Amino acid sequence: MNEFSLIETYFNWGSSSLANLGIGDDCAVINIDPNYQLVTSVDTLIEGVHFPLNTSASDIAYKSLAVNLSDLAAMGARAKYFTLALTLPNIKKKWLSQFSASLKSLSDEIGIILVGGDTTKGTLSITINVTGVVEKDKALLRSSAQVGDLIFVSNTISDAAYAWKQLQNNQIPSEYAINHFNRPKPQLVLGQQLSTIANACIDISDGLEQDLKHILTCSNVGASINIDDIPLTNEVKTYIAKTNDWCLVLAGGDDYELCFTVPVKNMNLLKNLQSKNNVTVTQIGIINDSMMLTKIGTFDKQCCSYQHF
Amino acid sequence: MNEFSLIETYFNWGSSSLANLGIGDDCAVINIDPNYQLVTSVDTLIEGVHFPLNTSASDIAYKSLAVNLSDLAAMGARAKYFTLALTLPNIKKKWLSQFSASLKSLSDEIGIILVGGDTTKGTLSITINVTGVVEKDKALLRSSAQVGDLIFVSNTISDAAYAWKQLQNNQIPSEYAINHFNRPKPQLVLGQQLSTIANACIDISDGLEQDLKHILTCSNVGASINIDDIPLTNEVKTYIAKTNDWCLVLAGGDDYELCFTVPVKNMNLLKNLQSKNNVTVTQIGIINDSMMLTKIGTFDKQCCSYQHF
Repeated sequence: MNEFSLIETYFNWGSSSLANLGIGDDCAVINIDPNYQLVTSVDTLIEGVHFPLNTSASDIAYKSLAVNLSDLAAMGARAKYFTLALTLPNIKKKWLSQFSASLKSLSDEIGIILVGGDTTKGTLSITINVTGVVEKDKALLRSSAQVGDLIFVSNTISDAAYAWKQLQNNQIPSEYAINHFNRPKPQLVLGQQLSTIANACIDISDGLEQDLKHILTCSNVGASINIDDIPLTNEVKTYIAKTNDWCLVLAGGDDYELCFTVPVKNMNLLKNLQSKNNVTVTQIGIINDSMMLTKIGTFDKQCCSYQHF
Repeated sequence: MNEFSLIETYFNWGSSSLANLGIGDDCAVINIDPNYQLVTSVDTLIEGVHFPLNTSASDIAYKSLAVNLSDLAAMGARAKYFTLALTLPNIKKKWLSQFSASLKSLSDEIGIILVGGDTTKGTLSITINVTGVVEKDKALLRSSAQVGDLIFVSNTISDAAYAWKQLQNNQIPSEYAINHFNRPKPQLVLGQQLSTIANACIDISDGLEQDLKHILTCSNVGASINIDDIPLTNEVKTYIAKTNDWCLVLAGGDDYELCFTVPVKNMNLLKNLQSKNNVTVTQIGIINDSMMLTKIGTFDKQCCSYQHF
């Protein structure tokens, strides 16, 4: 099978009103709305690094798109289109069918369209470049946290890292935890709703501590967080009680929840938002002018964040 | 070195008026002009597949961006911004410095800016997603060739494939030929000028015959080309005379020249364009309604195009 029939067979999902032309020409041509700014991000997932060797094609496709969508969520953007660069060791029709079906399913759910791609031969690797839109000057940034802002995270933290650790230790985590690892839910709706409520936002991909520190550094502020307030599932709480492995919570990574800061005056808006949507947000600390991150609560051990190299 | 210091050290080239925010936030935020459409394309280059193992970091960087720019050229687009997904087996400071300097040099020359990226650990692989703009409904397409159009190619064909073949056979090609292989020049200026003159256009990446066939298929037309009219350097002519290896010319690939079709009424415009610019274009055939590609001239052998798998 050559590249053209591969793309035609598995990734030609039909045209759309957004893109005049998609797969088939040298480039996709895309209409743009003058009231918006583009928001774009790229992430690569590599077998054995970002997902275990035995991960299903369906989960790989889902996660590859979801982690990119999470970057759009962190900016408060609406997802618009993406390109796919897929490196495959060989052509397996069943694998490609499952990969394609899963990618299309998440795309349809989110309302994002595939406008172009490239397939090459090599170690399995998926690079997705997502583009979304935000209203002019309304993008949620890392650099806008203000002293006095309250710090929140969405849902629960470290489920994915917990699942990964259990699998590595030949333990069986709950389906809930595995699902967080293989199929993280990008918080696009929450991100968009926060764009008029929060001052700063980031998605937690490399671990809560490291990602919160990005907000602090970019905003030239400090923070105090209470480790005991970090929302955890009972499963993770039990694991921590047994192991005292707080590193998992602070540096676990792969959460794809949002960490954001909200000025006190917007707390009622945040409460309304919570009650309207199926999302829980939990306050874990406060922004201060210390230029440091102070961790209070039961945890006092230094722990390392994920290193890419 | 972690991912953040790697990006900060090698790829933070400063901000620009196009992108409000580049490297450092979850996504880049980009201003858009309402009179234009976006044009976007992605290509992956893998060591040992798209460039030999001993290729310099500088040439790898150049080629990775150039082949993507060539897709924009084929659409008649102006280059605006790109993202870089870089997979590295390890961190070598000298290699990264050279890669970064070369990428920046070509970016500056073209006037395209790097707005975001991702670095991961694995087999050396470079995925670049370029985005450009075209005036509304002015994109050059593969699908607009008309019966009676004359078919042209820019400059000379198969220099890169010739260089690659010589290197594989432990022969030393000319610097000119090697340069075509390692540093193909994206024909952006020509593409933009052709947007009001040509009916259809493609860049020759997979071999002249295969890429011309894309135009024919997309436009529902046929063509007749005269193999003897294909412009070749003396070096390649000598090689062909010796080997009769016409496959190199028809299926060699990696040219990144443009193949385009022009209605007879625009021939004077095309002549003016040629004399104004440092580019040669050569007529090699004519579009007809046969729905086939007929090759006349000294060549009559079937030859295979490049297969990605």
